[in-house]
Amino acid sequence: MLYFLSDYTEGAHPKVLERLAETNLISQPGYGEDRFCASARDKIRAACEKPGADVYFLVGGTQTNAVAIASLLNRWEGVIAADTGHISVHEAGAIEFSGHKVLALPGEKGKLAAQTVADYCRAFYADETHEHMPFPGMVYISQPTELGTLYTKAELAALHKVCGDYGMRLFLDGARLGYGLMSPDCDMTLPELCELCDLFYIGGTKVGALCGEALVFPKGDMPEHFATMVKQQGGMLAKGRLLGVQFDALFTEGLYFEIGRHAISLAMKLKAAFREKGYSLFADSPTNQQFVILTAEQLARLRQHAAFEIWAPLPDGRTAVRFVTSWATREEDVDALIALL
Amino acid sequence: MLYFLSDYTEGAHPKVLERLAETNLISQPGYGEDRFCASARDKIRAACEKPGADVYFLVGGTQTNAVAIASLLNRWEGVIAADTGHISVHEAGAIEFSGHKVLALPGEKGKLAAQTVADYCRAFYADETHEHMPFPGMVYISQPTELGTLYTKAELAALHKVCGDYGMRLFLDGARLGYGLMSPDCDMTLPELCELCDLFYIGGTKVGALCGEALVFPKGDMPEHFATMVKQQGGMLAKGRLLGVQFDALFTEGLYFEIGRHAISLAMKLKAAFREKGYSLFADSPTNQQFVILTAEQLARLRQHAAFEIWAPLPDGRTAVRFVTSWATREEDVDALIALL
Amino acid sequence: MLYFLSDYTEGAHPKVLERLAETNLISQPGYGEDRFCASARDKIRAACEKPGADVYFLVGGTQTNAVAIASLLNRWEGVIAADTGHISVHEAGAIEFSGHKVLALPGEKGKLAAQTVADYCRAFYADETHEHMPFPGMVYISQPTELGTLYTKAELAALHKVCGDYGMRLFLDGARLGYGLMSPDCDMTLPELCELCDLFYIGGTKVGALCGEALVFPKGDMPEHFATMVKQQGGMLAKGRLLGVQFDALFTEGLYFEIGRHAISLAMKLKAAFREKGYSLFADSPTNQQFVILTAEQLARLRQHAAFEIWAPLPDGRTAVRFVTSWATREEDVDALIALL
Amino acid sequence: MLYFLSDYTEGAHPKVLERLAETNLISQPGYGEDRFCASARDKIRAACEKPGADVYFLVGGTQTNAVAIASLLNRWEGVIAADTGHISVHEAGAIEFSGHKVLALPGEKGKLAAQTVADYCRAFYADETHEHMPFPGMVYISQPTELGTLYTKAELAALHKVCGDYGMRLFLDGARLGYGLMSPDCDMTLPELCELCDLFYIGGTKVGALCGEALVFPKGDMPEHFATMVKQQGGMLAKGRLLGVQFDALFTEGLYFEIGRHAISLAMKLKAAFREKGYSLFADSPTNQQFVILTAEQLARLRQHAAFEIWAPLPDGRTAVRFVTSWATREEDVDALIALL
Repeated sequence: MLYFLSDYTEGAHPKVLERLAETNLISQPGYGEDRFCASARDKIRAACEKPGADVYFLVGGTQTNAVAIASLLNRWEGVIAADTGHISVHEAGAIEFSGHKVLALPGEKGKLAAQTVADYCRAFYADETHEHMPFPGMVYISQPTELGTLYTKAELAALHKVCGDYGMRLFLDGARLGYGLMSPDCDMTLPELCELCDLFYIGGTKVGALCGEALVFPKGDMPEHFATMVKQQGGMLAKGRLLGVQFDALFTEGLYFEIGRHAISLAMKLKAAFREKGYSLFADSPTNQQFVILTAEQLARLRQHAAFEIWAPLPDGRTAVRFVTSWATREEDVDALIALL
Repeated sequence: MLYFLSDYTEGAHPKVLERLAETNLISQPGYGEDRFCASARDKIRAACEKPGADVYFLVGGTQTNAVAIASLLNRWEGVIAADTGHISVHEAGAIEFSGHKVLALPGEKGKLAAQTVADYCRAFYADETHEHMPFPGMVYISQPTELGTLYTKAELAALHKVCGDYGMRLFLDGARLGYGLMSPDCDMTLPELCELCDLFYIGGTKVGALCGEALVFPKGDMPEHFATMVKQQGGMLAKGRLLGVQFDALFTEGLYFEIGRHAISLAMKLKAAFREKGYSLFADSPTNQQFVILTAEQLARLRQHAAFEIWAPLPDGRTAVRFVTSWATREEDVDALIALL
Repeated sequence: MLYFLSDYTEGAHPKVLERLAETNLISQPGYGEDRFCASARDKIRAACEKPGADVYFLVGGTQTNAVAIASLLNRWEGVIAADTGHISVHEAGAIEFSGHKVLALPGEKGKLAAQTVADYCRAFYADETHEHMPFPGMVYISQPTELGTLYTKAELAALHKVCGDYGMRLFLDGARLGYGLMSPDCDMTLPELCELCDLFYIGGTKVGALCGEALVFPKGDMPEHFATMVKQQGGMLAKGRLLGVQFDALFTEGLYFEIGRHAISLAMKLKAAFREKGYSLFADSPTNQQFVILTAEQLARLRQHAAFEIWAPLPDGRTAVRFVTSWATREEDVDALIALL
Repeated sequence: MLYFLSDYTEGAHPKVLERLAETNLISQPGYGEDRFCASARDKIRAACEKPGADVYFLVGGTQTNAVAIASLLNRWEGVIAADTGHISVHEAGAIEFSGHKVLALPGEKGKLAAQTVADYCRAFYADETHEHMPFPGMVYISQPTELGTLYTKAELAALHKVCGDYGMRLFLDGARLGYGLMSPDCDMTLPELCELCDLFYIGGTKVGALCGEALVFPKGDMPEHFATMVKQQGGMLAKGRLLGVQFDALFTEGLYFEIGRHAISLAMKLKAAFREKGYSLFADSPTNQQFVILTAEQLARLRQHAAFEIWAPLPDGRTAVRFVTSWATREEDVDALIALL
């Protein structure tokens, strides 16, 4: 079976696993106060070119979103997100469980336009009754988005500006950031991204780690007592080293970016093959998630040989499906899939 | 430096790490639907002698407590715990963050007596205004307790009975369960414990895993939509296999219990040495946490050679400290510490 | 100044005030256990032709919505509402504060179509990942809606059916129910409405009371420990009699309906005048809220003589405004306003 | 039947009701933006001798406590209260529902000693693991307490100091403040109290109003967007005038204090009679709640003629009961009760 189901279907990149084995018996304090976390933080700061950045490691994506949003919003505020945003649809109401409303605005191909946000905020403050509504306190975006698309640097700068205009924070969900940054279509570097976000996270789970996300506050303005809030939401890991060791490995000799390049290169090969063989793309994704439309017959045939995700049934009877590459995808598997097309 | 700071200061038991390496490249679906989780569940069911039990893997202890309690309590209910219980004092208000009150009752040496619970419940229902108070809906205990002490089977049975009498669930926090079950003072087996609890968790983080706790519903009555509630509280792991592989290793050939035995044997050796050399015990613990009282001079001297936790300053100027053994503790380190006493 | 700002800009209907004065010195227990509440409950049951109904009095609308929704939803559930629904936009995130997501669906003229709800639910359950999303557990509608429009009996029956099909409760916000039921366009009676809702409230604040809403469970299935949940959300009134006395007055000799008739008759007179004089209606409302479009010049002129609410600025520079009648509106004021048009 | 059950068993003081009638038809905007609220705020500021104070009217006591505490605490903070405090025991977990822990400390006769608070805070900050615990962010006290006792000015000043030392706010629940201030044992005035609290509320419900509490921030530092938070917790009243009119009446010509004096004078007469006739007092209360111990025979006999509350069954078979006076208590009823003793 050829496996393109997701980018979290194998364990960890071998170098990550090696590092876990090497450090296994070194005694270190818990709760992220170990030397591996310290080293990983430093390496991330260096990669960001932000020596004063705060970095906090959390276990998973929904947890990171929920903790970051609920720790930064004031009680009277909600968070703006695209209607397709992960927090809008696929986190089981985690943001609402923490007491905050997700203010879903229409996105385009998974992206939220600065103009859409500005219009919403202008109308909000113009409304005389706005004290009866949750205030927009943050904008949440994903890079790449849930549909594999990418914000350009100009789009991100525009969102950054509107956030500044209306006193909101800009939070970027980078669950697949490595795949985004290494896309040929990406026109910004990690340090450039740091200039335009108030906080973001560097996804580990989907980019070579067993688990873990690194939440970065580029300006070094992590809220006070953040650790207490993390613990309150059940996100503090006793063996914080597990995250530190992994991110230390991922940010050693550019492994994180190498993983991104590998997956993107295979994804582009696959995309070219889909196009060449006349398949319609459901979304034109420049990243490691490829969305293709299959007929019932194609779907039935491919499913016998490959694992991939059913994305959405289409009105015309065809089906949008998703193929995902990762650090673990082998070129021979991509070639075998292409042969099947 | 001799390291007795905690049982979460190293990585994982080598066999756990080996199993992670062996299975690393096997592709499996996410969110706990992989075959490693399935296998681990079966092995836990077998160890519990409860073929119909539900088992759900979570990442850490506070998360497991918060998810279990908030998923099982009705909205009008709180959870009874000893005043020294982990949820009462050391979880940053995680239970309250989920909307429920911890009803702290006085414990003795970390344990909650059935009589204390029964008295509280009787008084509660006798109070004509009890509809104005949170109802007692669950009893939370730890085995071993935060002070290293153990409930006897008779004490657990008595708590089980009072829970039945007042329609409450009995939840046992087994963060260190392996060390409890293997104590020479423990008079119950895991299957016997299963008969007396409505739910409990088998701690992995402190007993040889990198992370992970196995929440067990011995009667197979895990609440419907439990996964949705886990996700809502940020506790769902994309790579659920990380937990499955580890628990599969821990429950293969009795590794979990072997780890317990190893740590207990060293803890008992240490305890005997403390007694022999005239040290006062702060608590008489039959498990892997040993609480000793040190003079200022002893404290200063020992700290030069060993890492251990300051537990509490005492009114007479002395200090209660904690030494912890684990799967990672070496006999030679225990001997070296004894030599220092 | 002619006052058409809202239906909560005066005190109480004189008969309500009289009854408060008459009963003032009668000693009765608190928390709704007084004889006035008992009597009011009976009269409401009679008006509903539901002798077994449960009735609970709360102080205000947002409170009633928040308490009802958070008490009836399971933890994994959200509530479906029109995107213009009061809970979607104008309750400051009160539903989210209680931990539940408002699942906003597009409405038409303030109304939620059964088909829209059915489509959402069908797609939800067809989605293989729906355990990662909040479940639809309730449908919230308002009668009349926030735009003054009314559901027909057939529309309500269709919503009732889709709720039954997908295991959801149907909750009707009747903040202005009296004005809805007395509209010439309303094709259902209160007893008929009772057959089609799982719960609803009879608004008092906007229909003649100083404060108060009567939450009705027509089938008598109010959740157990509802009072505890009300108290938990700060909604229990020590002097519950204040609500009982008022509803007792409102449901004596049909006062509640008489108030509705009075306001509707004046609203219809006003609406006819607007139409006659060539004003455009922003919404065609058959109830006590009339939405009219004014030019800048008309707006400036009318504001000198009358108080009314700015509803929304329109793209063409004109403004939608709202005129509201109530029990307190005098015919001479309506005539004076008409003269000004 | 002689009625001493509580101080919320009748309607409103006649002058309050009169004022409601007089103002009934005056049209005013909603949500507390009416001129009655404005006037009442000014009169309260004058009574407090704090012209810059912020005053916000809420409907009931639990609501006021929940809104004030959840609006002022940071997310990582809990609120310290006596173990007998209303928020600790009788608010159905309302504080926890808002996500915050009540840190209950042992009180004495219902009062929390500054030393107890200081000891707790000192130990908290000395504990190296305190980031794993909810921070003490506020101290909650009641004046008079739930047992009718009073803080002296010196005790309040000591609490004020410890709050300052540890960065906590001091919140005083004045549900029965009028009865406290008018007690012969009270050694402080309302302006003096204002100097020592960060916020407090002046109870209306139990002191002559139909409903309503006036939350006062003497320093004028009400949090921004407080109204939004009030609405979020369901506490905003559409007809805010209902509260404004009542407090305007209560603070006209000293009515609030006159009510206090009346009730206290009758309570003292009753207390003297109890003592004279050899009854034991359960608590020595200088305010309008009197706690007496009755034998089974006395209880049975008195219950035939008088309504009062069973407070607590005592181990010796006797019963502690509570008699309460209020603005509505008539001297002849007190005399009749005394005759029965």
